[in-house]
Amino acid sequence: MPLLPAVPHLETALKGPLLAIEQKLLSNKATIEAWFRCQFRATPAPFYASVDLRNAGFKLAPVDTNLFPAGFNNLHPDLRPLAIAAVQHGIERACPVTDGVLLIPENHTRNLYYLENLCTLAGLISDAGYAVRIGSLNPDITTETAIELPSGRPLTLEPIVREANRVGVAGFFPCAVLLNNDLSSGIPDILKDIEQVMLPPPSLGWHSRTKSAHFTHYRDVAQEFAELIDCDPWFFDPLFSTCEGIDFKNGEGIDKLIETSQALMTDIQAAYDGHGISNQTPYLIVKADAGTYGMGVMSIQDPQELAALNKNARKKMTSGKDGLSTESVIIQEGVYTFETVQDAVAEPVIYMIDHAVVGGFYRVHTGKTITDNLNSPGMFFEPLAFSDACIQPDTRLNPDAAPNRFYAYGVVARLALVAAARELKAAQA
Amino acid sequence: MPLLPAVPHLETALKGPLLAIEQKLLSNKATIEAWFRCQFRATPAPFYASVDLRNAGFKLAPVDTNLFPAGFNNLHPDLRPLAIAAVQHGIERACPVTDGVLLIPENHTRNLYYLENLCTLAGLISDAGYAVRIGSLNPDITTETAIELPSGRPLTLEPIVREANRVGVAGFFPCAVLLNNDLSSGIPDILKDIEQVMLPPPSLGWHSRTKSAHFTHYRDVAQEFAELIDCDPWFFDPLFSTCEGIDFKNGEGIDKLIETSQALMTDIQAAYDGHGISNQTPYLIVKADAGTYGMGVMSIQDPQELAALNKNARKKMTSGKDGLSTESVIIQEGVYTFETVQDAVAEPVIYMIDHAVVGGFYRVHTGKTITDNLNSPGMFFEPLAFSDACIQPDTRLNPDAAPNRFYAYGVVARLALVAAARELKAAQA
Repeated sequence: MPLLPAVPHLETALKGPLLAIEQKLLSNKATIEAWFRCQFRATPAPFYASVDLRNAGFKLAPVDTNLFPAGFNNLHPDLRPLAIAAVQHGIERACPVTDGVLLIPENHTRNLYYLENLCTLAGLISDAGYAVRIGSLNPDITTETAIELPSGRPLTLEPIVREANRVGVAGFFPCAVLLNNDLSSGIPDILKDIEQVMLPPPSLGWHSRTKSAHFTHYRDVAQEFAELIDCDPWFFDPLFSTCEGIDFKNGEGIDKLIETSQALMTDIQAAYDGHGISNQTPYLIVKADAGTYGMGVMSIQDPQELAALNKNARKKMTSGKDGLSTESVIIQEGVYTFETVQDAVAEPVIYMIDHAVVGGFYRVHTGKTITDNLNSPGMFFEPLAFSDACIQPDTRLNPDAAPNRFYAYGVVARLALVAAARELKAAQA
Repeated sequence: MPLLPAVPHLETALKGPLLAIEQKLLSNKATIEAWFRCQFRATPAPFYASVDLRNAGFKLAPVDTNLFPAGFNNLHPDLRPLAIAAVQHGIERACPVTDGVLLIPENHTRNLYYLENLCTLAGLISDAGYAVRIGSLNPDITTETAIELPSGRPLTLEPIVREANRVGVAGFFPCAVLLNNDLSSGIPDILKDIEQVMLPPPSLGWHSRTKSAHFTHYRDVAQEFAELIDCDPWFFDPLFSTCEGIDFKNGEGIDKLIETSQALMTDIQAAYDGHGISNQTPYLIVKADAGTYGMGVMSIQDPQELAALNKNARKKMTSGKDGLSTESVIIQEGVYTFETVQDAVAEPVIYMIDHAVVGGFYRVHTGKTITDNLNSPGMFFEPLAFSDACIQPDTRLNPDAAPNRFYAYGVVARLALVAAARELKAAQA
C-alpha cells in the first residue's frame, strides 16, 4: 500500500464547490489522462513550464504560466528521479542526436537564489546523462567563472561564444541549447539564426509573448476540457480583457482602461451571482501583457482606483523587467487564494518538464492578504515543496486529502501547459 | 543540495577492484548514458524487466533477466512517480492510441505475494492514466472474483474472454495487452493470432526463450560496452556454456555435462588468475536453459558432483515450472555475493520499465551462503527496497557510497536490458 507522503496541511475556507470539482476530476481520471495524451500528441509541450495557481475554494485556476521557469531548487528532492526522467524524454523528443546541452541563464549573476536554481537545473540535465555547460550572455562574464553557492555546490559560468551558426562555450557546441533566459529585451544577435535546436524557441521569449495570447489559448482549452468532463469552464478559467495603448507615466489611455475594467467587473459579478457566490466580492489584477517576475502587477477592488494612481503605483507599472514600458495590459479576474500554510497566505506553483508534472511548492507570504499578488520582488517567501508528484490520487481518501488536491493541481497546471503548447505551435508556424 | 536518501548500509568484503569499476562508470557517465540512448533507439527495450545482480566485489554481473517481472510491490513507494512516468512512456511508445490495458497475470490465485504485485502493477497503470482490468487465464476464475489482499487493497480478477481477434474481459477489449504471465507452457490458444498489441510479445515467454540466448546477446553487449569505457568485459559478464540433451531423471547426458562444466571451470580459473583473484575459488551454477522462478538451479563447487546427484537433486532439476522437464541446461560462472544486509546474504534485484530504472531491492536470505542461489521457492526472504533510483550518482561522495553503488547497479542492469532488447528484436524479426 503506498505510504502517504508528509505534505503541508492545507486549509480551504470554502469546502463545498471545490470538493465537487475535485471529485469530478478524480472520477474522470482515465478520461482526463487520455485527453492529455491526445493533446500533447497533437501539440507537443514546451520543454518546461511553471504555473502559478490560485485556489479560491469555489475556483481553481492558473494565473501565470512561465516558459523559462526558475525555482527548480525549491522542488522536493524525493521527486528528482521524476524530473530526471522527464528531462531525458524532453531532450530526446526535441533533439534525439544530442549528447550535450548548452544552458543559457538569466544575467542575474548576483542573485544566489537564481544561481541555486541554475545549479539544480544543470544537475538534472547531467543526471539525465548529458554533458552540460552554462554559457552566459552577461557581458561581465568574460572568462570561466566559478561560484560557490550557499548550498555548498560549485557552479561555473562561461562566456557564450558563437562559431558560424552555432553557439557554445569554449570547445562545446552541442546540438541542443536550453534557454533559462526569458529574453525580455528581445533576441540577442548572438542567438539569431542559430542552427542548433533551441528549447524553448526564442520566439516564446517575453519580448514577443503576451499573457493575453496565452489566456486566449487557455480559454479554448478550458472550454474543451469542461465539455469533456461536463462542467462549467469558469471553475478553471479566470475571465480577462486586454487594453492597448496605455501610458501610465503620462496618464494616457487610463479612461479606456477603467471602462474595460468596469465591464469585466460586471461580467465577474454575473459569474459570482450565477454560481451563488455571495460572500466574496470580485476584484481585478492588472498586469503588463508582456512581462514577468511579478513586476507591473496591480490588485484593484474598484476600477476607479485606476484614475487616482499615485506616482509610485504608476512608476511600478512602467518599470517592467529590463526597462520595458507598459503599453498593453491584461486585466484578469482576481482569484482569491484561500490556502494558507502556517497562517500565511499561500499559492501553489506547479512545475512541469516535457508533459510530466515534476513537483511544486507553495509560495507563502507572511505579509500579504488573500487578494494580493504574492509574486513581488523583495518580499520574503518561504517555499514549501510538495513531496507528492500530483499524479497519484487515492480514491479511498476524501477529495480534499493532499494527494487528491495535488492531483487537481496537476490537472489544472497541465491545462495551462496545453495552452502553452498551442502558443508554441503558433510561434513555430 | 539533494538530500541523500536513507538506504540500507552495504558491506562489501573486497573493496579494491569494485571501487575501480564503479569509479570508471561514474567518470564515464555522460558517455555511458549517450550510449544507452543510442542502444534503446536502435533496439527499443521490452516493456519491463527485472534483473538479478550479484556483486562479488571484484565483479558485478547480472545472473538472471526476467521479462515478466513480479515483485513490484517490493519497490520503495517514494519511487512510484518514476514508475508511473515510465509506464506512460512505455505504453505510449508501444500503443499510442490505447486508453486501456488488459493485464494478464500468472495463475497463482492463492499466492498473496504475487497478487500484491499484481495490485501494485495495476495501480501503476491506473495512475499512469489508463483504464486497467485483469483478465485471468486460470480456469478456476469463471466469474468476477474480488480478493481482499493482506495490505487491505482490493483486487478483482475476471475471466479472460475472446471476441474475434481480441481478448478482454466483459465489455473491455483495449488496444494494449500486458502480459505478467511468462507462458512457460506455451502460448494458450486464446492468445494466438491476437490483433492487439501484446507487451511483451508472447514469443518472449519461457516456452521459447532461453537463458543462453539472453546471455549470448549479453556477451556481445558487455564486449561493446567494455570497449566504450576501455575495460575488461569480464568484470560485468559471467562466463557460460550450454549443454543439450540432458535427462537428469534417467542420468542421460551427464558425462557431457561434466566435461563441459570442467572446461568452463578451467576458463573461470584462468580469468581468476588473470585478474589476480587468489582468495576465492570458482564455482558453477547449473540451470534449466528455459526456466524461471529459481527452479531447476544447482550450485556446484566441483563438476564431479554432477555424477553423484541424489534422487532429490535430480528430481529438482526435472521439475521446472508447469512440469517442464529439463533438456537443455546453461552452466554459468558462479558470481559470489559479498553483499550482506543485517548479516544475511543479499543480492540486488533491479526493476526497469521502458528503458528507465524504477527501483530495486535486496533479496536477503538468512539461511544461505555466499555461493547459494537465493531465489528458491519457500525460502524466507526479506526485500529491502532502495529509495534511490540508481540514476543520481554523487561524484563528491566515495565511489562505494550508496548513490554511486546504485548507479553502478543501474548501469549493469541496463546492459542486461539492452541484451533483452536484442532478444525482442530477434523474436519480432
